Amino acid sequence: MRSQGKLYIVGIGPGAIEEMTIKARDALLTSDIIIGNKSYINLVRKLLDGKEIIESSMGKEVERARKALLLSKDNIVSIISGGDAHVYGMAGIVFEIAESMDDHFEIEVISGVSSVSASSSRIGAPLNNDFAVVSLSDLLTPWQMIEENLSAVASSNFCIALYNPKSQRRNENFKKSIEIIKRYRDADTPVGIIRNCSREDEAFVVTTLKEVLKFDDCVDMHTTVLIGNRESRIWKNRIITPRGYHRKYRI
Amino acid sequence: MRSQGKLYIVGIGPGAIEEMTIKARDALLTSDIIIGNKSYINLVRKLLDGKEIIESSMGKEVERARKALLLSKDNIVSIISGGDAHVYGMAGIVFEIAESMDDHFEIEVISGVSSVSASSSRIGAPLNNDFAVVSLSDLLTPWQMIEENLSAVASSNFCIALYNPKSQRRNENFKKSIEIIKRYRDADTPVGIIRNCSREDEAFVVTTLKEVLKFDDCVDMHTTVLIGNRESRIWKNRIITPRGYHRKYRI
Repeated sequence: MRSQGKLYIVGIGPGAIEEMTIKARDALLTSDIIIGNKSYINLVRKLLDGKEIIESSMGKEVERARKALLLSKDNIVSIISGGDAHVYGMAGIVFEIAESMDDHFEIEVISGVSSVSASSSRIGAPLNNDFAVVSLSDLLTPWQMIEENLSAVASSNFCIALYNPKSQRRNENFKKSIEIIKRYRDADTPVGIIRNCSREDEAFVVTTLKEVLKFDDCVDMHTTVLIGNRESRIWKNRIITPRGYHRKYRI
Repeated sequence: MRSQGKLYIVGIGPGAIEEMTIKARDALLTSDIIIGNKSYINLVRKLLDGKEIIESSMGKEVERARKALLLSKDNIVSIISGGDAHVYGMAGIVFEIAESMDDHFEIEVISGVSSVSASSSRIGAPLNNDFAVVSLSDLLTPWQMIEENLSAVASSNFCIALYNPKSQRRNENFKKSIEIIKRYRDADTPVGIIRNCSREDEAFVVTTLKEVLKFDDCVDMHTTVLIGNRESRIWKNRIITPRGYHRKYRI
């Protein structure tokens, strides 16, 4: 007999419940058990009345994924992920653990609005052409690989989104990354810093590569940093990256 | 006196209404006028009863953005964009036109789930580490710049999402791009092809760089192609890109 359980891997979006998808909200509402990092659980807690809630913490992702899979054999379970479930989220580790357990699981990934999208929307259209997303956390990725990726996208013409730019233990990575990007991009390249996007105390700064390290204190692990491409410009405290219409049409 | 109008630039998500955010749906519901490409209007038409609908077509983005801005002086207007409003969407051109008109407009961008996120969610966790998004359309971007960007991300360790891989008039770009990526990546690198994501006739294929051109006929302008990084692998018709937990934990 097939078990009746299911695991939803739910991207809950950047913060505010209204920035969740209808499908993500409905998955939470139909689940028996919700499991997630406490700070993300707190963002959706008012949807969770009457549910079993299992709170976990950073650094416990492997254990959390395994527990969610086991519970999903007989229950409807949602494991929640901030932003989109893919962008450095829980989707990967859940599939890795499922593979290692060599068993059958019903798994559905539900997409959410990523911080790339949400933070971009606060400052105009900074990423409106080819873009790349790079995490500056070297907890799970060797720093050399991060540097290699940064150099590649800075030397070609990508808009760049930096995730996890800084934590208390890694407070030099952001500065080092800006120095790498400066080797390839003009000092006037627009840079947006968006902190606590879609949450209390949301704030942003629009500046340039030349000036950005003056705002080093505004950057923490709840910050996304968006860097324009070679054509990006600042207009009224917003960043515009042209899609290319000016090459074909009169604007 | 300040005008009473406002322009929402709404990312409606990949297709199905349940994959819209609550905020995007509410923006449409509170708008007087909805303007957009006909195919996107059709995806949300059942939300638009009683509203003035202005249908436009591909290639008319400049005209559409200008019209939306002018109407927003005295009306609540939503200009709609497939997926997220930033990812090759309407956000950029609206800000460019607003800049050129040198007037005050009330503009709010509302994020949506991008095709990158939605199509990833159908095939496991293909993009679960640093990733780059490249459009293969050379209508607005010179082909040389596209090649430069592709080479940069293929030669470093990005997962790669290809947008607009093919149209009737540009049916060689996809093949040329795969050849470029093959110069840098193993033939066994996983590749996912997702067509009509979140719409009728959604379908996907999981294959490898070596085999992908056998599926050339499955690729059209409603397709997203996702290419793993150097560590990605295929498991049960899904793609897993490890986040890096295996370097620190026992999985």
